[in-house]
Amino acid sequence: MKAVILLSGGLDSSTVLYQAIADGYNCHTISFDYQQRHRRELDSALAIAQKAGVVDQQVVKFDLRQWGGSALTDDAIELPQKRDLEEMSQSIPVTYVPARNTIFLSFALAYAETISAQCVYIGVNALDYSGYPDCRPDYIQAMQEVFRLGTKQGREGQSISIKTPLIQLKKTEIIQLGNKLGVPWELTWSCYQGDDVACGVCDSCRLRLAAFGELGLKDPLAYAK
Amino acid sequence: MKAVILLSGGLDSSTVLYQAIADGYNCHTISFDYQQRHRRELDSALAIAQKAGVVDQQVVKFDLRQWGGSALTDDAIELPQKRDLEEMSQSIPVTYVPARNTIFLSFALAYAETISAQCVYIGVNALDYSGYPDCRPDYIQAMQEVFRLGTKQGREGQSISIKTPLIQLKKTEIIQLGNKLGVPWELTWSCYQGDDVACGVCDSCRLRLAAFGELGLKDPLAYAK
Repeated sequence: MKAVILLSGGLDSSTVLYQAIADGYNCHTISFDYQQRHRRELDSALAIAQKAGVVDQQVVKFDLRQWGGSALTDDAIELPQKRDLEEMSQSIPVTYVPARNTIFLSFALAYAETISAQCVYIGVNALDYSGYPDCRPDYIQAMQEVFRLGTKQGREGQSISIKTPLIQLKKTEIIQLGNKLGVPWELTWSCYQGDDVACGVCDSCRLRLAAFGELGLKDPLAYAK
Repeated sequence: MKAVILLSGGLDSSTVLYQAIADGYNCHTISFDYQQRHRRELDSALAIAQKAGVVDQQVVKFDLRQWGGSALTDDAIELPQKRDLEEMSQSIPVTYVPARNTIFLSFALAYAETISAQCVYIGVNALDYSGYPDCRPDYIQAMQEVFRLGTKQGREGQSISIKTPLIQLKKTEIIQLGNKLGVPWELTWSCYQGDDVACGVCDSCRLRLAAFGELGLKDPLAYAK
């Protein structure tokens, strides 16, 4: 059995990769170089895939800066650093990249059909400060229909299924799951900045640190602050 | 009003661009350099967009050869040249590129949301020898749901709509429509080969020539045979 795993190098997608391995799949990872703010997370993705011993890893390159529209693809838009954690759950943040998951899942679908994989794993999460529209269950269900109707494999009754093992988990529960599966947290990268060590102050770092803290655990990643 | 138009440089997408202009939209075209067999159709797309006087034209680059899977992205798979026109409507051809329209529509969605466009035009066609799963109405309907649920704009009740003016037209009817709209056929490119003149013998050329012939019209494009 083969699976394609969307691997960004963050905490969530790394946990998903280890879940797919635990589920018994031969894992093929796909990562994206879309001219995001830094390549640091991409390096993390490659290191984790190697550590996990995947069958194959693909990096797809394109340039979302050509039209921008997000703090991650336009340097003129400032990264969020001081948002209230409660407020973060209410609105769609400036780090939202238009249609990013749709683009990612489309490439994953193309790759999965080409290698005759049974499923695609993605680490979306609908809870815990996720204002992103393309992380919610109804969106995933709509993409599942696209997977079924938009491919030869799907039309022949062998639809590639989308697996979202984290979609209803809290960040603390994801860390607990990752601990159980042996995810190498020290290789993962969540920080919006691409420095040598994680900044510890951006929204992404704070979310991660808060979850480790809540569990009474120490995040093994090095932080500047 | 703004629209994003998927423009490959072929007969269908060129007609769609002229339809979008006739519908009153400020047109932004998007074309793809995915390492297809030749760049000839891309040059045609740019020439047509310029001739039509579009507001902006984007070319998105990525490499579908990294996993292949189609006669258009893998030189080891031979191009179809002798298929019976009737047979062509029955099965999915080797020129099928896994998830291609899903990838194209995903980028069009990202671009459309970034520029706050109202719709995306695509020249899919469900009749006339189209064995492609991602050209059928049920697939387009599934993508429409993704457009609605996967974006900020869609979640706020301003969903970007997918327009498919050719979906139920025969090739001959598309040519009649294009004639009415003034599509510059001599700038379009349908041939699977990327030579100076169209080959006239590949399935794509034959389909085009048959349609012009059926209407008693002469295709203004130069052909080798």
